[in-house]
Amino acid sequence: MTIKLYCFGESGNAYKAALTLQLARLDWSPIYVDFFGGETRSERFRSEINSMGEVPTLMDGETTLSQSGAIQHYLCDTYAPDFGTRHDHKNEVLRWVLWDNHKLSSQAGVARFLQNFVPEEKRPEPVITFLKGRLKAAFKILDAHLADREWIADKTPTIADFSCCGYLFYPEPYGFVRKDWKHIDRWLSRLQELPDWKHPYDLMPGNPADRA
Amino acid sequence: MTIKLYCFGESGNAYKAALTLQLARLDWSPIYVDFFGGETRSERFRSEINSMGEVPTLMDGETTLSQSGAIQHYLCDTYAPDFGTRHDHKNEVLRWVLWDNHKLSSQAGVARFLQNFVPEEKRPEPVITFLKGRLKAAFKILDAHLADREWIADKTPTIADFSCCGYLFYPEPYGFVRKDWKHIDRWLSRLQELPDWKHPYDLMPGNPADRA
Repeated sequence: MTIKLYCFGESGNAYKAALTLQLARLDWSPIYVDFFGGETRSERFRSEINSMGEVPTLMDGETTLSQSGAIQHYLCDTYAPDFGTRHDHKNEVLRWVLWDNHKLSSQAGVARFLQNFVPEEKRPEPVITFLKGRLKAAFKILDAHLADREWIADKTPTIADFSCCGYLFYPEPYGFVRKDWKHIDRWLSRLQELPDWKHPYDLMPGNPADRA
Repeated sequence: MTIKLYCFGESGNAYKAALTLQLARLDWSPIYVDFFGGETRSERFRSEINSMGEVPTLMDGETTLSQSGAIQHYLCDTYAPDFGTRHDHKNEVLRWVLWDNHKLSSQAGVARFLQNFVPEEKRPEPVITFLKGRLKAAFKILDAHLADREWIADKTPTIADFSCCGYLFYPEPYGFVRKDWKHIDRWLSRLQELPDWKHPYDLMPGNPADRA
């Protein structure tokens, strides 16, 4: 039975789950969620898909799950242990998934949203500036960590990589300039060279051009 | 061999790890980190404890680990599977640990820090207001989730509970008023009634009174 992922192209959190499904070569389909049209706030989405209005949400047989990191861990555990749960490095993998959710993607997602998807007159500039400061500290940590290794948590790619890259391939400005971070830049190139890698706007339906 | 937890009382993230150690009745000692004196930025801390300057950091024999959620998961997996890794509910447990790191504690920790531990003239009020708005949305989700259950992810307490409560017992104001959230309030009382439960300022060294 095909795994369903409720997602939309602009969501870096959804991309983390989609990229894991894609690189594990699982049988899955993206189901478009009209986030910008308010679908995640609808009664139907809350009762049938996710009561918290979260995207991504995964449906795989009896299992329904939200939170990209939990979805990634479940997919690993169930289908693709090479991506992070079989390894001696499983603690290190989960540490970086949590670090990403705590320190990197949670700031990147909000900064990108505020700077690009909120009308200019409503943009809270001091908040964007503050988030960019926190992001810069996170990029510094990640860049230093990648100086002497190819992948974040093991000798091969894991969900730690597919989590931390969640917002880093998007073209919209939010304070991440890839060429400023040499080791992150090379690591992103390695990800792009993986067989089956796809850009978020190619892997999931929905992108800003649709709404232009 | 005694497990060491590098921590300080004011850190809700450290509390999550300390509370897991405490409720699992493990042999552990808190090692005080002088965060406010700059210890996590010191060369010694970065080279000997954690290169990212993170608190909490756990040391257990050969294992050194940071990120509270990764520490909690490791402790569960190694010593206390009843707290979340043995269960049929293990996906649900990890989902809530990630939700907490992503949506609740990351906002609560920063809001509390900015409002209480930054000199008044340097406080970025628009940022605090923004974070409180996001926090309110998170409290609403958690309160609704607890309306018809005693514990967050299973019939018994798990690391999902010990994660989500990380910042909720502290007295400093940051937008959480316990009596405003009926179901959260009752759930916190259930936690406080667990044998061996302790308040963060009783479980770990260091509290604002020391620096007054």
